[in-house]
Amino acid sequence: MVFVQIREAKEGDCGNILRLIRELAEFEKLSDQVKIGEEDLRADGFGENPFYHCLVAESLPGPGESQEPCVVGYGLYYFIYSTWKGRNVYLEDIYVKPEYQGQGIGSKIIKKVAEVALDKGCSQFRLSVLDWNKRAMDLYKALGAQDLTEAEGWHSFRFEGEVMRKLAGK
Amino acid sequence: MVFVQIREAKEGDCGNILRLIRELAEFEKLSDQVKIGEEDLRADGFGENPFYHCLVAESLPGPGESQEPCVVGYGLYYFIYSTWKGRNVYLEDIYVKPEYQGQGIGSKIIKKVAEVALDKGCSQFRLSVLDWNKRAMDLYKALGAQDLTEAEGWHSFRFEGEVMRKLAGK
Repeated sequence: MVFVQIREAKEGDCGNILRLIRELAEFEKLSDQVKIGEEDLRADGFGENPFYHCLVAESLPGPGESQEPCVVGYGLYYFIYSTWKGRNVYLEDIYVKPEYQGQGIGSKIIKKVAEVALDKGCSQFRLSVLDWNKRAMDLYKALGAQDLTEAEGWHSFRFEGEVMRKLAGK
Repeated sequence: MVFVQIREAKEGDCGNILRLIRELAEFEKLSDQVKIGEEDLRADGFGENPFYHCLVAESLPGPGESQEPCVVGYGLYYFIYSTWKGRNVYLEDIYVKPEYQGQGIGSKIIKKVAEVALDKGCSQFRLSVLDWNKRAMDLYKALGAQDLTEAEGWHSFRFEGEVMRKLAGK
């Protein structure tokens, strides 16, 4: 039986987090989009005004076992602002390594995010999921989330790169 | 001919911004969801570490005209964090009063957001739009945005209220 604890990430976790970010992007079939490095994660998450916060799921050795604790999942979030409800949380990424899935670790991360959000006075938290990732969608729905794209028709748009520079006249 | 300038919002604009937030929510047929007040907007946007930033579109009197400048639109944004690209901008709301639409004011707001995002080292900015709001969708596409829900299948999920408290065990 594996025991997994959810804890706040430390700066020394950034290497492991980056490996998991890449694994998740590969699973999402969008790994060519990952441009970030370990140094960025360190600088952006662990300065005075961090741009993000991160939880890690750490597998701990059982009694009498000698292996090191091992980071097997993460949830990366930040604070956003709703003009309807005020301050809220956005869970940018949530991921558990395939060999650790099916043990409730994803749910543990989501529960911890809900706890953090409530502690900070937020009344909701949002996340995005790819429509073919049925397993994740089913989990979020089972935990009580609402699919706003389905229910209300929200579509996500992005401006980037050359388009953005053209818009800005640069 | 109406002249409209886009400028950063000041604390004194919060009353006008709240009126426009309510107008937008009414247009989106979701006005029952607006729980925020003018005091929240003042406290959250104009302290030492603001939770959001806001641009306003202000209509200015022509030569020889005597009316006061008038806030006719706004764009409210904040910084988010992509695990692929680093720091980015999210445009939470963009709105122009119906009687001022069709004059390029929305495009001006979007161009200014692109400028701010580039100045802050962001490589993209995101926003969400309701699928029946064809006019807005067409504008964003014409300006070069990609519909990620259509292209990649992203769905937006939300946990809130009682569900969140239950998850957090509170």
